Amino acid sequence: MQIEQIELAHRPCGMPTLTNFRFETKVLPELQRNQVHLKGMYYSVDPYMRMRMNEGKSYIPPFEVNQSLNGGVVAKVIASQHPEFYEGDEVVGMLPWATECIVPGAGLQKIDTQYVSASSFLGILGMPGLTAYFGLLDICKPKSGETLFISGAAGAVGLVVAQIAKIKGCRVIGLAGSDDKVNMLKNEFGFDDAINYKTASNLNASITEMCPNGVDMYFDNVGGSISDAVISCINSHARIAVCGQISLYNETSLGEGPRFLPLILSKSALIKGFIIIDYAERFPEGIAQLSEWVGQGLLKSKETIVDGFDQLPNALLGLFSGKNTGKMIVKA
Amino acid sequence: MQIEQIELAHRPCGMPTLTNFRFETKVLPELQRNQVHLKGMYYSVDPYMRMRMNEGKSYIPPFEVNQSLNGGVVAKVIASQHPEFYEGDEVVGMLPWATECIVPGAGLQKIDTQYVSASSFLGILGMPGLTAYFGLLDICKPKSGETLFISGAAGAVGLVVAQIAKIKGCRVIGLAGSDDKVNMLKNEFGFDDAINYKTASNLNASITEMCPNGVDMYFDNVGGSISDAVISCINSHARIAVCGQISLYNETSLGEGPRFLPLILSKSALIKGFIIIDYAERFPEGIAQLSEWVGQGLLKSKETIVDGFDQLPNALLGLFSGKNTGKMIVKA
Repeated sequence: MQIEQIELAHRPCGMPTLTNFRFETKVLPELQRNQVHLKGMYYSVDPYMRMRMNEGKSYIPPFEVNQSLNGGVVAKVIASQHPEFYEGDEVVGMLPWATECIVPGAGLQKIDTQYVSASSFLGILGMPGLTAYFGLLDICKPKSGETLFISGAAGAVGLVVAQIAKIKGCRVIGLAGSDDKVNMLKNEFGFDDAINYKTASNLNASITEMCPNGVDMYFDNVGGSISDAVISCINSHARIAVCGQISLYNETSLGEGPRFLPLILSKSALIKGFIIIDYAERFPEGIAQLSEWVGQGLLKSKETIVDGFDQLPNALLGLFSGKNTGKMIVKA
Repeated sequence: MQIEQIELAHRPCGMPTLTNFRFETKVLPELQRNQVHLKGMYYSVDPYMRMRMNEGKSYIPPFEVNQSLNGGVVAKVIASQHPEFYEGDEVVGMLPWATECIVPGAGLQKIDTQYVSASSFLGILGMPGLTAYFGLLDICKPKSGETLFISGAAGAVGLVVAQIAKIKGCRVIGLAGSDDKVNMLKNEFGFDDAINYKTASNLNASITEMCPNGVDMYFDNVGGSISDAVISCINSHARIAVCGQISLYNETSLGEGPRFLPLILSKSALIKGFIIIDYAERFPEGIAQLSEWVGQGLLKSKETIVDGFDQLPNALLGLFSGKNTGKMIVKA
């Protein structure tokens, strides 16, 4: 049986392009004991994937050249030789960018789509939701009345962070890259205010104006000069969760920025980087709470769904120019 | 009765000089109820005082121009109108840079010098000791076998941090500004290795060589390019306590440095600034533990004592060229 998969053709230097990807036709092997045959339904594209396109060890192994990329995928079981999976089951797991695949059943998770969409398991009930949950609650530790600033606020993680912070009674200010996104943040997601960083003439002045009591918490998805501006506005005992640095992922050199450790000292501030795997043991707690909030209508999902397996490379590249609102997903 | 005091003549721009200080002769008022008349014995000079010479609010109010400077002082009670203090008592408190003074008894602490020197209460049992204790144990959370890097290792705080880390079973590497200090760190204070940053041709290479398993904890007293080098060598889940930034205190602009938030993210690392007042409620715990370790011979004091009240400005300036080893104190 022939399937299509998307391989890393060569590693990018700086911003990747479509030439970094290659479509290959493969023949699937025979289904073996404890394996399942899957057909991809929804494919996640995430900023961290850019790091995996580079050589060398990061916190997650790099993609291999001439091998299929992989990531979070929701798939349907076509055939199973695994005792826990049956034809027709829907599952989520780290799977290849392939139209179909044969993989061990171990490591797959069955999903229940009775009350939520299958794609939710790549978004609000998946890694982005968990990232928002643990980064905000475990690192920022929001208290009612405090001000939270979110960069990359209209992204998959940012939108969930904001909604949880509102549940906790915080003032929430977000930064995004278009007027449409800014309006959505304020009108659909309860942000107290939002800034279009592409048109703000003076980012520091905008932040100061929108955070008259200063910034108690900063949830950083972006890094670079945007973070420089936000950090300069922190209050005493501020907490900064470093979740993403998308503005720098395509830079060939990180360059320099203003020194801020003296401010971190004088403000007794905290900076904590994290990757979601740090919280693996607490995923059940996170998923349970996120599901409860979704069920109560306190947490809304937002997805940008791109049609067509062959659009995966384009969708991934689109993250770096802000083509997504909320979670970017490719539907096969 | 005439006394002498040292006032801030004008605020420095960049590195202060002796012209920023002025000696003034004053007449003490009458001793009032609940006041004590003190004669200064030992005066603390500390890097944070440089910040207080600047205008504007920091975490501690600035010194006032044409007013006496102040800081930690050990003094003897000459006369008392306060029910808890008697002539001959020795006390420690935040006191003016004056040969004698009349102050409220409230806020003074009686000290017991039966087993330890009076000057210890400005050093190993005072703010520097407490700073080391809470910064290391509360922020770095040392585990046996881990590697700790200390900048400003031969200073008042650094030497105590190192000794506590050795009690906790850590590998300890220090950075100091002379070969004599480096030898002292290794031969007298149990450092596993130490670097003279003034003669190291390649600081990154030296750190990598001396920390073959990477840096698990960094206790930063210095900041600037030294911290840039250490941070580039951190391990996953590293903890960085930002205690001082003495290399930058005399800079009129903080300038730029390499961006490290992407590394903090990928390493799930923690950076926490702190000032000792954050831990005020836990001072009794800290003093009790430090005293116990001193009594057990596990913690050694190191002081640079400068003779003469009139040497106070010189001693303070000396901190910025590394004239001190351990705690810098002026003896009246």
